[in-house]
Amino acid sequence: MAPDGASVHPTSVVSQDANLGPGVTVGPFCVIHANVTVGEGSYVDSHSVLGAPTAEFYASPADYEPPPCRIGARTVIRSHCVVYAGVEIENEFSCGHHVTIREGSQIGEGVRIGTLSDLQGYLTIGRFARLHSNVFVAQRSTVDEFAWLFPYVVLGNDPHPPSDTCTLGPTIRRFAVVGAGATIFPAVDIGEGAVVGAMSLVRDDVPARSVVFGVPAKVVGDTADIRCHEGRLERVYPWWTHFRRGYPEGVLPDPGESSDDA
Amino acid sequence: MAPDGASVHPTSVVSQDANLGPGVTVGPFCVIHANVTVGEGSYVDSHSVLGAPTAEFYASPADYEPPPCRIGARTVIRSHCVVYAGVEIENEFSCGHHVTIREGSQIGEGVRIGTLSDLQGYLTIGRFARLHSNVFVAQRSTVDEFAWLFPYVVLGNDPHPPSDTCTLGPTIRRFAVVGAGATIFPAVDIGEGAVVGAMSLVRDDVPARSVVFGVPAKVVGDTADIRCHEGRLERVYPWWTHFRRGYPEGVLPDPGESSDDA
Amino acid sequence: MAPDGASVHPTSVVSQDANLGPGVTVGPFCVIHANVTVGEGSYVDSHSVLGAPTAEFYASPADYEPPPCRIGARTVIRSHCVVYAGVEIENEFSCGHHVTIREGSQIGEGVRIGTLSDLQGYLTIGRFARLHSNVFVAQRSTVDEFAWLFPYVVLGNDPHPPSDTCTLGPTIRRFAVVGAGATIFPAVDIGEGAVVGAMSLVRDDVPARSVVFGVPAKVVGDTADIRCHEGRLERVYPWWTHFRRGYPEGVLPDPGESSDDA
Repeated sequence: MAPDGASVHPTSVVSQDANLGPGVTVGPFCVIHANVTVGEGSYVDSHSVLGAPTAEFYASPADYEPPPCRIGARTVIRSHCVVYAGVEIENEFSCGHHVTIREGSQIGEGVRIGTLSDLQGYLTIGRFARLHSNVFVAQRSTVDEFAWLFPYVVLGNDPHPPSDTCTLGPTIRRFAVVGAGATIFPAVDIGEGAVVGAMSLVRDDVPARSVVFGVPAKVVGDTADIRCHEGRLERVYPWWTHFRRGYPEGVLPDPGESSDDA
Repeated sequence: MAPDGASVHPTSVVSQDANLGPGVTVGPFCVIHANVTVGEGSYVDSHSVLGAPTAEFYASPADYEPPPCRIGARTVIRSHCVVYAGVEIENEFSCGHHVTIREGSQIGEGVRIGTLSDLQGYLTIGRFARLHSNVFVAQRSTVDEFAWLFPYVVLGNDPHPPSDTCTLGPTIRRFAVVGAGATIFPAVDIGEGAVVGAMSLVRDDVPARSVVFGVPAKVVGDTADIRCHEGRLERVYPWWTHFRRGYPEGVLPDPGESSDDA
Repeated sequence: MAPDGASVHPTSVVSQDANLGPGVTVGPFCVIHANVTVGEGSYVDSHSVLGAPTAEFYASPADYEPPPCRIGARTVIRSHCVVYAGVEIENEFSCGHHVTIREGSQIGEGVRIGTLSDLQGYLTIGRFARLHSNVFVAQRSTVDEFAWLFPYVVLGNDPHPPSDTCTLGPTIRRFAVVGAGATIFPAVDIGEGAVVGAMSLVRDDVPARSVVFGVPAKVVGDTADIRCHEGRLERVYPWWTHFRRGYPEGVLPDPGESSDDA
């Protein structure tokens, strides 16, 4: 139940068996199901659903027992989002509008997910990863900490669809960057700090700190060789040598480490 | 009106002229307009709109008479969906979240449509077809029974946009598979059991049981030659020889028929 | 406050400090925040949010003062849309469902935006421009009057993401046409009346009235040379010589002007 400190808009439908921490704000027209926990100081904006039922519910509603949905402290869930039962989200998470996060998703501290992204569940997103708008993440994908997926990236998990004999999603390693509209094949490993160009189709593993591009993608260079278009930066990658907006103090490597570490 | 057996959340706004069968469950914050019928045992989850008005309404609201919206039995409409007036959906249909289905759509038995898909209306989806997340289907498209469209597939209908002289969508034949991110040009015919590779741009008809790939797509082989990545399957296509999850008994061909039939 | 002439569904939550003109219709389950103005005769359909708070709100709610959100007369905002504080939209605008328009967007008269489109803010859309379904417009983009963006077009703004040293979106000039699934790189200029083929990746400026195609895109011809597939049109581009549906009388060039003007 909501303690005194939570503020729930009177139009919202909140289960007696949901647990809202102090300072949680729930906007109008939300639905919060049983077995949902939201940590202190979080915002759940209007028209969102937390603890949405999994497919088991529709198959056998009488027997359905919702797995827990645990959302950390100081998170921001913007309007029209759907977070399923069986999701775990750490503190300082935020997301855009119309986001869907299905059961079995494990989402780390400080992750940000853009509007319209669709996380299919049974996946892991490491802390401080950034998924931009309209990213699709198939089941059994792994996105490591500090990775970036730009708009309309698709992570697939079926090598010869439809099948269910050997499905596994890609792994996107830490600090890697996947450009807008790229599609990554099942089980592909995008190495640490690698860069995938926009609209590439990646069928093979990408070595750490390589740049790939094309349909299908090929290695076209090394991230150390990418130059800033307008000459304002000495070095573009690793991006954390110059871009640190939105990260808490101390979580990114020291800018001076770039030569040896990533 | 809802018979005794229907369960409508008290927050929802349901027209007196809607017709909900026994055992229908309507979640919170739904809007169900006049002239909508929902068959027995269906779920309409929260924040959905059934019977949404067509463009004629806004042009002349006083004269507007909503065409019927008929949704079959044992369907599942997940949250935040919009189904227009003038849509017909058969039994055992289910869809994800944030789906839009516009007027003039005819959708067969047992069809599944993924989250964020956008069906523009005046189109036909055959029984047991599967549209994954975020698929766009232009007006006057035809998707035959048992076809598969994977995430971010776009079916276009205008050969030199914008125009309205010769618009016609593609036809996707039975058992065909269109990979993630592929775009199919207007009036293109994707043959029975054909496979379109991910991120292909298909401008020409694809023969039955061919594999096409590329931007623009070219024939690169025959589906009979595709081998399983990990050797767990003797034969990958036709997919129904090994993949039968989610289909009722008896609707797919017998696995033994594969050599002659598809 | 709503004057007598506005019709607000009793379930909707409308701020005392919102201003709804005569004949405005607000559907069920909407949220209209303070400092929002909606012009006469407009429709705001169900589950929409107008004046959604910017990021500043979450950082410091006590100090937040919403910038004005001004929506013109005779507009149609369909269901499940989110329009932020700090947006200006002119008369006769209309949009589909699940559209997001963030702060700093300036949208001209008669613009139409399709279902699921995501406008990231600090951008300009000229009058009578048409954005189809699922278009992504990055911050600091410019779409001129009468331009067309087809489904799944992405306008990017970061030449080596993530960075914030030299971000600028593309400029799409008047009468230009960007085909489905095309991605346009930051700061690229798509010239007046140019045509970008479907699924192209455009990294360089496109001259007026040129046709580009490919990943990456190259100039493949002149719009004057494009012929109608089925021979029903003498000349396909400029499109306004034959396609005038949905434009008010007098706003498009006279069809006879085509040889010299565009």
